[in-house]
Order: sequence, then structure tokens, then C-alpha cells
Amino acid sequence: MNFLEEKILADGIIKPGNILKVDNFLNHQIDIDIMRQIANEFKRRFRGKTVTKILTIEASGIAIATMLADMYDVPVVFAKKGETANCTDDKFVSQAYSFTHKKMNNVFVSRPYLNAGEKVLIVDDFLADGQAMLALIDIVKQAGAEVVGLGVAIEKGQQKGGEILRAAGYHLESIAIIDSMDAEKQTVNFRKL
Amino acid sequence: MNFLEEKILADGIIKPGNILKVDNFLNHQIDIDIMRQIANEFKRRFRGKTVTKILTIEASGIAIATMLADMYDVPVVFAKKGETANCTDDKFVSQAYSFTHKKMNNVFVSRPYLNAGEKVLIVDDFLADGQAMLALIDIVKQAGAEVVGLGVAIEKGQQKGGEILRAAGYHLESIAIIDSMDAEKQTVNFRKL
Repeated sequence: MNFLEEKILADGIIKPGNILKVDNFLNHQIDIDIMRQIANEFKRRFRGKTVTKILTIEASGIAIATMLADMYDVPVVFAKKGETANCTDDKFVSQAYSFTHKKMNNVFVSRPYLNAGEKVLIVDDFLADGQAMLALIDIVKQAGAEVVGLGVAIEKGQQKGGEILRAAGYHLESIAIIDSMDAEKQTVNFRKL
Repeated sequence: MNFLEEKILADGIIKPGNILKVDNFLNHQIDIDIMRQIANEFKRRFRGKTVTKILTIEASGIAIATMLADMYDVPVVFAKKGETANCTDDKFVSQAYSFTHKKMNNVFVSRPYLNAGEKVLIVDDFLADGQAMLALIDIVKQAGAEVVGLGVAIEKGQQKGGEILRAAGYHLESIAIIDSMDAEKQTVNFRKL
């Protein structure tokens, strides 16, 4: 088991409905040492790739993106979400359906912050159905930039995001992939790679 | 002029209505070197203080908080906003009026992530009317924790937040304090300390 799988087992809380709460170290309170290790692990897994920008989506992706940008010494851009796209001429806009909140969100990045030819590493804390990740990829393509890789802390392997992204040929690295969870027993099965 | 004042002059855009756009280096695209310098400067200004937690509010405070937490080697907690407080027994909840969006937001932190006796350094990218900062302070007090300082990247000195917080006795450190701006001439006057 790697450091993140161990942390999930130690501090994650499994709730009925296939919900994993990790807000005591990842997406509300942030364990800075886990963040450092996540960033180190992405740097290692994407070794040899040229990266000129880190892209993520607000809010909980920002901490991972910042730690990683510090290593690569490149800017972060965080996509914003939820605002009505009433002024899109200066923005790249895409859509992502939130299964959690049961609504379609706009996802957008101001045009000057993604440029043709840039080599973009996209990172996020969670991958489930892949809606947010697909919206971020769409935005990178709209900008004429290149997706060099996708880095995810926790992938929920029973949902279809990972499968879609790998089938589409993206270099997706998930540090922990959850194949099943049991809320009653508080057990998690991780995918062995 | 310090590094942040220089950056604001170089890359900030002043819009009519006393609006300063710094989303090319601070709150949409993030210049990682500016973030490092902001974190270094807070560490220097709060030298000698014991800090056990960094508190901020989503979304754009998270990058600064993460860089600073890496230096102090303590956890970050980012307060969430905007959700209806329909389940408050497990949260510390406060309110902040947003003059930008003309609405009252709930600001909340899950109870386990702020504890009595903790020494909390609160950081944010902007201070204007102080509504978000006052809500964060209120939450720290609800938890029985101590506010050891308030670190702000850019303070809009014409608005009343800084005055209120200093009068209340808080140790507030703002790296750049804007006393006036001129949208037509694109000039900014910084407070000399």
C-alpha cells in the first residue's frame, strides 16, 4: 500500500452510498505532508514530461496544484465554476454535470491564461465520473494547448471517469484507485497495479 | 516598493469602480514565485509567533495558505462558503456579506478541524470590507481557539476592513495596502508604512 492508501484507511470515513469522506486531510482540512507526498508522486510519475502550466478546478484541487507548481516552477491556473456564462467572449467555457449536486456547472478559464502550444498537466483531488476532468480537457483543447497528463489523488474505480480517460489515450495517474468500499465494515479495496 | 506592489503596478488592471483585477497572478492564474514571496513575507512578519494551523477561505486563499503551511509544517483548513446551513450541529457557521455579489454568504468549518487552544494564523488574498475575515475570526472564537495574526496579500485601504481589524487589536499584516487607484491613468498609490 502506498502512503495515500494508508492515509485513506487510517483517516477516511466511508458513508453509505459509496461516499468517501477525506475532508480531514484532503478537501477541507489539508494535511500538508500528504500534499507534499502527492506532489512528489506526481512529479515522479510524470518524469520526463515537459510541463509549462498546472491546471486544476476550484476549490480543493488548488492545494495539490500549488505544491506541484512549486516543484515544476510554473504557474497554476484554477478553473472557476458555477457562474453563468453571460460573458464568454473572454473565456474558454465548458460544462460539467455534478452528480453530487445534481446540476450542470459551467467551468471556465479566462482566455489569456491558457495559450496555444502550452503543455498542461491537469490535477485534481478526486476522479469519479470524470465530468470535471473532461471539462478541463475540453478547455485545454479550445486553447490549442496540449494535455501532457492527468494527475488524480483518489480515483473512484467503480465510476466510469478513469475508464473513459484511459480509453481516450490520456496518461492518467491516480495515486489511489478505490475498487470497492464497505460502509458497514469501514473497509476499502484498492486496485493493485 | 516591495515585490507585491511592483507586481500590482506591472500586471494589475484597474477598472472603474475601484476594482483591481489581479487574476493573472493571484486569483485565477497563480504566479508561483509571487506565492513563495508572499508566504516568505508572512513568515517574516509573524516571526516569533507560534502557529498550529493556517485558516483561509475558499477559493483563492488556498494557494497562499498551502505555501505558508508548507513553511510552518502545520495543517491548512479552508472555510467553505455559500452552502445553506441546514446541518449546523457539526459545523462552526458564520456569515459574511459579499459587496461584490450583493448577498449574504454562510461561511463554515467542520467542528473537528478547529479545536480549543489552537493558534491560528488566518490568511487571505484580499481584504476590503473585512466581512470574510470577520467571519473567519468569529469561527476561530467559536472553536475556543486563538487568532495569532491576520495575513493579507492586498488590502484595499479605502475600505474599512483594515481599520476595523486594527482597532479591534488584531495583528494584521497586509503586504500591499492600496490607498487610491485611478482607472483612467492606471495608477495605484500604496500606503507608506
